[in-house]
Amino acid sequence: MSGTGGGLRVNSPAPDLALAARLFDQLRQDSFDGTGVTRDAYGPGEQRAHDLMARVARELGLEIAHDGARNLYLTCPGRDRTLPAALTGSHLDSVPAGGNYDGAAGVVAGLAAIAGWRAAGFVPPADVTVMAVRAEESTWFPYSYLGSKAAFGKVSREVLDLPRADTGRTLAQHLADCGGDPAAFGPAYVDARRISRFVELHIEQGPVLVDAGIPVGVVTGIRGSLRYRDAKVLGTYAHSGAAPRANRHDAVRAAALLVAAIDGDWERMEAEGEDLVVTFGKFFTDPAQHAFSKVAGEVGLCLDARSLSTATLERFDALFAQRAAETGERARVRFELGARTGSEPAVMDAGLQQLLCDAARARGIAHRVMASGAGHDAAVFAQMGVPTAMVFVRNDLGSHNPDEKMDLADFAPACQLLADALAAPPALA
Amino acid sequence: MSGTGGGLRVNSPAPDLALAARLFDQLRQDSFDGTGVTRDAYGPGEQRAHDLMARVARELGLEIAHDGARNLYLTCPGRDRTLPAALTGSHLDSVPAGGNYDGAAGVVAGLAAIAGWRAAGFVPPADVTVMAVRAEESTWFPYSYLGSKAAFGKVSREVLDLPRADTGRTLAQHLADCGGDPAAFGPAYVDARRISRFVELHIEQGPVLVDAGIPVGVVTGIRGSLRYRDAKVLGTYAHSGAAPRANRHDAVRAAALLVAAIDGDWERMEAEGEDLVVTFGKFFTDPAQHAFSKVAGEVGLCLDARSLSTATLERFDALFAQRAAETGERARVRFELGARTGSEPAVMDAGLQQLLCDAARARGIAHRVMASGAGHDAAVFAQMGVPTAMVFVRNDLGSHNPDEKMDLADFAPACQLLADALAAPPALA
Repeated sequence: MSGTGGGLRVNSPAPDLALAARLFDQLRQDSFDGTGVTRDAYGPGEQRAHDLMARVARELGLEIAHDGARNLYLTCPGRDRTLPAALTGSHLDSVPAGGNYDGAAGVVAGLAAIAGWRAAGFVPPADVTVMAVRAEESTWFPYSYLGSKAAFGKVSREVLDLPRADTGRTLAQHLADCGGDPAAFGPAYVDARRISRFVELHIEQGPVLVDAGIPVGVVTGIRGSLRYRDAKVLGTYAHSGAAPRANRHDAVRAAALLVAAIDGDWERMEAEGEDLVVTFGKFFTDPAQHAFSKVAGEVGLCLDARSLSTATLERFDALFAQRAAETGERARVRFELGARTGSEPAVMDAGLQQLLCDAARARGIAHRVMASGAGHDAAVFAQMGVPTAMVFVRNDLGSHNPDEKMDLADFAPACQLLADALAAPPALA
Repeated sequence: MSGTGGGLRVNSPAPDLALAARLFDQLRQDSFDGTGVTRDAYGPGEQRAHDLMARVARELGLEIAHDGARNLYLTCPGRDRTLPAALTGSHLDSVPAGGNYDGAAGVVAGLAAIAGWRAAGFVPPADVTVMAVRAEESTWFPYSYLGSKAAFGKVSREVLDLPRADTGRTLAQHLADCGGDPAAFGPAYVDARRISRFVELHIEQGPVLVDAGIPVGVVTGIRGSLRYRDAKVLGTYAHSGAAPRANRHDAVRAAALLVAAIDGDWERMEAEGEDLVVTFGKFFTDPAQHAFSKVAGEVGLCLDARSLSTATLERFDALFAQRAAETGERARVRFELGARTGSEPAVMDAGLQQLLCDAARARGIAHRVMASGAGHDAAVFAQMGVPTAMVFVRNDLGSHNPDEKMDLADFAPACQLLADALAAPPALA
């Protein structure tokens, strides 16, 4: 039990860091794919992680429940079970060949906090539920925040027919694989009015904390996104030596000119003070058709733009459509942008931010108040009207890659702040 | 027998166009892959085409021979067998999912010419050999003009260890599959001093003849090439929403900026009157690692630049290296250009060009004198000191694609000019 929290409004016992270390090791062992960690949404990788968390929850004597989307809820009963519960958690899936901490750290942190309470004989004032969210990484199913939105009943049943990008099998089939019943998918399980707060711990996915030399971040807001996941550039295949410049419909040239034009726009918008990041994460000629001696007739590419401002995203979207049209005309190709998907920016609760900052100050934990560049399940809770906060943990080498590197020495203070925020009575939060 | 050639120095009987039509049909049937035509070099696709030509040669009573590289030689004996022979032919392989006429038309034309002579009781003054050349499309083995260079003994035996791009199996293994003996690979089979000329008929692979409304081209020269088949851009994978612009090592952005910069250079050099075509035929993120939510850490790409001028190619090569270095620094990535390969430009024989133009004029065949943008086996013969010429056939929709479209009505006059050039006595050529 921490002895440094004398000045705190709340003072949680110390989390069980040995349990956290064991869980991280086991998670990695269960999901290493030879390159990185792969926990496929609604597949064996994610399911093994869910099974692991349920096993530990049983050992801790927690209440275990699932909703119709097969999200997992692990509840530590509070002193007054009629009070609104505090929720914490994050997702257990990863991108293909990703890292061990993105998402999973938030579930491990919740269990470590509760295990610390149990060891210290501490019972929280109200129920505290650790939620293991499904399918946050939309690289698997083309849908943002599938698991957390489904918990609120905000996902239409048509989504059951969506194919997973790699397997081509539907969400309904994958849900059934994970012990779910597609017929039960749809209704809300979580009631925003019965929750006092949602607090999510997550690794930082950019280099801000590393560059600043600070272990913990308190998040102000989450960037929304604008995505074209399946854009196509359609030109004409031709002989690389014999097709004259004036006569080409070169899909690689056209796509490259578009990326370069948008890069210039991004630079300008950022210089004008707009919050924006722009990524073309995929750009590929057709391996069945391309050759060094062929002008490429087709390119597939995807765009992901993010901002704290909805207005910036809309301005960028209009600009992107304009650039695609201009470049298509100039390079004599056709751009098919495909469907637009994305998410809204989300603002974190001011009171919870204050509580976290107060706790950090009282405990002498160095912290930075910062925006989240990445999307998180917390955005859904905020949009549903739940007072929401996030705690970031310093993490080197980025995320969504095999090298992501979070030190347990940084996880410890972040997990302590999470425990403090969950242990606060509903009225305080 | 044509009655229109009275003013000609040579006057070949008409080619057997019915045979040509049958051969094109059979070739397509033997190599259709569901999308286009695939005749893989030193693989089953190319071999079936070789077997077909040998079968027809047997029916025509031609002499059949192979060299150590398994090129095929089909010889119609001439009146004086001590005179230097006239050679014709082209390659029988195609790019993956390519068209039916690129290469094959030149072999079919030679056999159709000889079949026409046989039907008319015509015997050429000297031997005429139709050569079916192996592996001209270097998309299979990364080596330019493998078959024709091997015929002259200009391919080192180390090349036997080159893996084929798709199968990964070596040239030695593929050669053995085609009935060849790797131990016999190496020595020259064709002696430039024993050949009076090489004349290759080929479809035009650009749109020049189609745009001009002219069926036949007489070629002045063949562009040389400069290639980087396996260039790489190495950056760092990162989270698409959380990695700030100033901190990225984005391989897609960098590769696109390079392609755009080179596109500007090409535009400028062309405006300054330089002969140049530039193609990035492949550009791809790694399907095992890319995701719309990841900044790409790696891109593979290839460059193919061609020109009639060696000086232009060298100037372009220096510029390309400079742009890669500049872009690498600007975008904080590393360009690994890999090995440079390519071929020298080749000039066609003035006397043979004159002979072909004279014959076309005498027969009233509309023709255009033009450069070849694509490389051809004829370039090797020219570089070996053999008087060399090429006849182009109008061909719509480009080549190296399933849609290439040559009309037999255009093939007929081109084949007649080829037959005239082959029937001329050695001293005339």
